[in-house]
Amino acid sequence: MILDKINEPKDLKNLSNEETELLACEIRKLIIKKVNETGGHMGPNLGIVETTIALHKVFNSPVDKIVFDVSHQCYPHKILTGRKEGFIDPSKYYIYTGYTAPEESKHDIFKVGHTSTSVSLAVGLAKARDLKCEKGNIIALIGDGSLSGGEAFEGLDCAASLNSNIIIIVNDNDMSIAENSGGLYKNLEVLRKTKGKNDLNFFKALGFDYFYVEEGNCVEKLVETFEKVKDINHPTIVHIKTLKGCGLKEAEENKEMFHWIMPHALDNFYNEPVVEQENYTNITTNYILNEAKKDSTIVAITPATPGVSGFNKKFREELKNQYVDTGITEQHAVAFASGLAKNGAKPILAVMSSFIQRTYDQLSQDLCLNNSPATILVYWSGLTSADATHLTCFDIPLMMNIPNLVYLAPTNKEEYLRMLDWSVKQNKYSTAIRVPNIELISTGIEDKTDYSILNKYKIEKEGSKIAILGLGNFLPLANRLAKEIEETLNIKPTVINPRFITGIDEELLENLKKDHEIVITLEDGILSGGFGEKIASFYGPSDIKVLNYGGKKEFTDRIPLDKIYEDCRLKENLIIEDINKILNLARI
Amino acid sequence: MILDKINEPKDLKNLSNEETELLACEIRKLIIKKVNETGGHMGPNLGIVETTIALHKVFNSPVDKIVFDVSHQCYPHKILTGRKEGFIDPSKYYIYTGYTAPEESKHDIFKVGHTSTSVSLAVGLAKARDLKCEKGNIIALIGDGSLSGGEAFEGLDCAASLNSNIIIIVNDNDMSIAENSGGLYKNLEVLRKTKGKNDLNFFKALGFDYFYVEEGNCVEKLVETFEKVKDINHPTIVHIKTLKGCGLKEAEENKEMFHWIMPHALDNFYNEPVVEQENYTNITTNYILNEAKKDSTIVAITPATPGVSGFNKKFREELKNQYVDTGITEQHAVAFASGLAKNGAKPILAVMSSFIQRTYDQLSQDLCLNNSPATILVYWSGLTSADATHLTCFDIPLMMNIPNLVYLAPTNKEEYLRMLDWSVKQNKYSTAIRVPNIELISTGIEDKTDYSILNKYKIEKEGSKIAILGLGNFLPLANRLAKEIEETLNIKPTVINPRFITGIDEELLENLKKDHEIVITLEDGILSGGFGEKIASFYGPSDIKVLNYGGKKEFTDRIPLDKIYEDCRLKENLIIEDINKILNLARI
Repeated sequence: MILDKINEPKDLKNLSNEETELLACEIRKLIIKKVNETGGHMGPNLGIVETTIALHKVFNSPVDKIVFDVSHQCYPHKILTGRKEGFIDPSKYYIYTGYTAPEESKHDIFKVGHTSTSVSLAVGLAKARDLKCEKGNIIALIGDGSLSGGEAFEGLDCAASLNSNIIIIVNDNDMSIAENSGGLYKNLEVLRKTKGKNDLNFFKALGFDYFYVEEGNCVEKLVETFEKVKDINHPTIVHIKTLKGCGLKEAEENKEMFHWIMPHALDNFYNEPVVEQENYTNITTNYILNEAKKDSTIVAITPATPGVSGFNKKFREELKNQYVDTGITEQHAVAFASGLAKNGAKPILAVMSSFIQRTYDQLSQDLCLNNSPATILVYWSGLTSADATHLTCFDIPLMMNIPNLVYLAPTNKEEYLRMLDWSVKQNKYSTAIRVPNIELISTGIEDKTDYSILNKYKIEKEGSKIAILGLGNFLPLANRLAKEIEETLNIKPTVINPRFITGIDEELLENLKKDHEIVITLEDGILSGGFGEKIASFYGPSDIKVLNYGGKKEFTDRIPLDKIYEDCRLKENLIIEDINKILNLARI
Repeated sequence: MILDKINEPKDLKNLSNEETELLACEIRKLIIKKVNETGGHMGPNLGIVETTIALHKVFNSPVDKIVFDVSHQCYPHKILTGRKEGFIDPSKYYIYTGYTAPEESKHDIFKVGHTSTSVSLAVGLAKARDLKCEKGNIIALIGDGSLSGGEAFEGLDCAASLNSNIIIIVNDNDMSIAENSGGLYKNLEVLRKTKGKNDLNFFKALGFDYFYVEEGNCVEKLVETFEKVKDINHPTIVHIKTLKGCGLKEAEENKEMFHWIMPHALDNFYNEPVVEQENYTNITTNYILNEAKKDSTIVAITPATPGVSGFNKKFREELKNQYVDTGITEQHAVAFASGLAKNGAKPILAVMSSFIQRTYDQLSQDLCLNNSPATILVYWSGLTSADATHLTCFDIPLMMNIPNLVYLAPTNKEEYLRMLDWSVKQNKYSTAIRVPNIELISTGIEDKTDYSILNKYKIEKEGSKIAILGLGNFLPLANRLAKEIEETLNIKPTVINPRFITGIDEELLENLKKDHEIVITLEDGILSGGFGEKIASFYGPSDIKVLNYGGKKEFTDRIPLDKIYEDCRLKENLIIEDINKILNLARI
């Protein structure tokens, strides 16, 4: 194997063209085997193998610094920078994260996992280099999908006026996660068709020098161009045409499906698809499809992540012009939804919890300040064993402290559908729903609550002495805890389902004072800035004791969920320990 | 006066060219007189008078919908849409806000005050129109300065593929608040020089139809072009060249100074400038200038708001390449600072509290996840009588719940300078400092605290029974409250200066339990998600009573500060009332 000889980038320098092509094949095989085993980003990595080899052949990392946008295309880079055993040896498949990580290697400059950041980060590196009067190339590698993100444009705009070396490699595979849309992509398409020669050129208009590489999956051609731009003294774009999923027929032909796959997706590719159980995703798409037939102003929106919300091909085709993929543009997506709502349409915007983080000011100013009655569905929320770049535990503090927003936390199918229907059909409030991120629970009993009466919590079980507020995903934990308390402490606790994240049910909380001593809050997100602290503040001047449970304010990184729960004392027995401490103190 | 006849847009329809030019003069005079009296946006409004007249002459608002970006250029629009008395009658100068406000007029579609939002909002309006099969023009009016903002680009990219009517008017006056920078502005410059005929055209590259108006301060020429694009069936840019401050010599010649002025700035223009007292702004610029001389890697950064942080002409000229105005690009500015810090430079990024809202994800992912040791100075923070679009009371909940960030709240000159110096020179933490937004207090005693020992609160006065935590701007209130408590309740309270917003001093708080019964928190920002709630949560399981004071979770709109304090019980006598309630209960 050629790869046997490659332990760091400098080992690539003297490889012949034939050897680099062989190396590309070897890397590709490793990626296909590993990703099929572990799950992960398949298509992006297969497309970028040759680019990565060529980059490390021509440039001298880490003196020359390469910033990977999103970094879901960094597997070949990891293989070439001393981490190949994480791809060769199945027992080591999990030792490296799927994103760049400076703690793993000096060749990784930043820890990144959100899109559209590479150019700005690179401009910073370049400016620091210039201030220190150092040499070296600063390279940002960004995919066409990430280019639509506002941060990327801000970066490009500033990069263009840098007056020194910065090389931005646009990896153009004609695909975001799903199909690309937007004016920029049309320009990229024309540039591909004209082999970079079209007069109207987005990058040149911004002032960049511009190079085009037609054969972006050929190391030799890439090396040729990289040699030309190496040590260039002004801002430069290298636009390369690559094939997403290159080398794996299934991935080449099903680019969206193979962008990120579950373990064994390739093995299962030719099997009959498993019939899907009812879950929060498909009851949502079914609701939207049904309602959209009756009301032509309902629009389902995704900022380039249709998979997150189950907006699959069939859904999109059925919805036609009532479906909009805005591309990677979370900020626009929120403002767009506000505009739609303001002009009488009924937008439903689906966003993953981790990516709603990109829209604080749009939620505040464009949406809530205007009370635009849009509906935002927040998916995958909660504490998670995910890597540090894709945590989904910050949406509660991010959103619940924005004035005017109604953020709801349903706990079962009937409640969720009722909330969704209320949210879509009302026209007074900007609303968001934290789509439950647990297995679907159905009560079988229609929820008839009028959610326009805000901030009314629901008592699930009447009890005394101890009250447990189990928010959204954690109502089942509240119920289990109540059972355990009853069994071990002989106290029958009250169990409360708050349903409204954004408000306090003062009347109910006030009433609890009569026959309760301890109030426990449980939330599936970080505590800091969240729901429980508000309950503690409410009871601050009173005799009620409050115990808040939730995640810590930290970037956890692939910590097993059970370990996180343990660390945060989110376990029945640990909470009972804490209750006992209070009860014992009271007895003294 | 022509204006006497103009009560709504339709009254403009039959005016002759001569009459519209006269009208423009009348409007200009009103704006100059009023803005000089009340303060406000002078330059942007003087530049846009003719455009506004032409828009309302050609289009039919509100069936045709005009969205003003930032809306600090909406005064002529207000004058023409039934609100002229707010500009004619000095007793009514304050009845309308300086931004568009739907509650004032059906001709204002959105309440906006942050930049770069108009295109996305307009795309939403347009899509809703299409879904409802309605007619009408959707117009976004955006200045060249706002175009660099990422949200604007996301909007443009999506607007370009709309396939129906949307007209984006680019008001190009060659100025942001300060000078423009970035690749896009170079392209605008070339387009102006070639009267729109240059081959490389940013807008055409995105797929827009494109019209150029050389004489953007001539109603007749504008009307000609607007007539052409009215009811156009595809996305269209009208690029108009205007003169910022047009018609007022002082403003034309001093564009930055007259972007937004204090009351009577015009009257005082020819007077000797008042010698500036020492304040937090000038001690900051002095610090930066001094340190930058010693260390060439120090960089002062502003995202197009140098005035907020006193980065004036002299400062910029002295710093040369150690000063960067990134343009309106808050997201980029944070990522840029992270890149600089990661490559060994010492970035100091100055941002107004209201605009830091645009960077949550960049603070979290680009900066703090990477522990990049950049320094962010947050200006103008606190509860405010400002209008709803420029509130500065959300930065604490926004920032303090982000992992890894060290957010500091100094309370006097010596503390502030020590924190600033520590922050700039350390290389372990991403830090932010809430620059005090009160009159400078100097203790005269050098602060020698080692701020690398995180989360150590300072006891300012030892006492018992009651402890008051006065965060940042509110330490003086804590001191006044302590004095009042001592005088009226005969209790000598402990006064604590937390200094660290982002952490809990568990040891100190634990110690307070020994001889304190009530802990009071005071913070100059909204309570929701902020500092005090964490103290309440900490003491939740204990006998300590906690009273949290801060702003409410609401968009206040030009409410006098004293009224806000009253509503939030942020007054010594009201807090003492609350304390008495607890003390009386304890006595029962």
